[in-house]
Amino acid sequence: MTTNKLAEIPTGLLLEALKDRIENQQRQLATSDKLANAVPIEEAAKLISGRRNQLGMSQQDVSDITGVSCTTISKAENSSMKVQLDNFIAIAKATGLKVWVA
Amino acid sequence: MTTNKLAEIPTGLLLEALKDRIENQQRQLATSDKLANAVPIEEAAKLISGRRNQLGMSQQDVSDITGVSCTTISKAENSSMKVQLDNFIAIAKATGLKVWVA
Repeated sequence: MTTNKLAEIPTGLLLEALKDRIENQQRQLATSDKLANAVPIEEAAKLISGRRNQLGMSQQDVSDITGVSCTTISKAENSSMKVQLDNFIAIAKATGLKVWVA
Repeated sequence: MTTNKLAEIPTGLLLEALKDRIENQQRQLATSDKLANAVPIEEAAKLISGRRNQLGMSQQDVSDITGVSCTTISKAENSSMKVQLDNFIAIAKATGLKVWVA
């Protein structure tokens, strides 16, 4: 036997408790996994333009895909919050991003 | 001893491995903790009206706090995405919520 600081607790019970804890955490992580790198929407402009550039798309390309005007895309990429939600969601989606509330 | 399906592995090693796993998960959770219950913005209407009711606030109260019209608050609470981002952010903030991009 190696050292076990929790030697007073029967090993079977201990393993069960650890198993439960791991499973609980996994459930939480499954929900929040893709959100580990989330940024507040006010700071998302760089993230969106960065993703667009990574994907080799121009603002015109995003406009063609989404039907959102280049003017609105430019506003969104300049941190303007004077953009309608559905347009912002479409721009984000075109660059593989989603908008969340928490 | 209770049953242990991993009986071939020395208990000490098993406990160490489980401990490591829990600690790794905890680090991940610390990053994404507040986002564990995030919902896509398209589904956030109920979350916002629920929080507002929990806080004992009327739509008029939220309007007074945020300067956003009751019409717009009502639209946001009815899942309309035809709401300007800054107004949505203000409504969410009044009910203790934030908007994220990921």
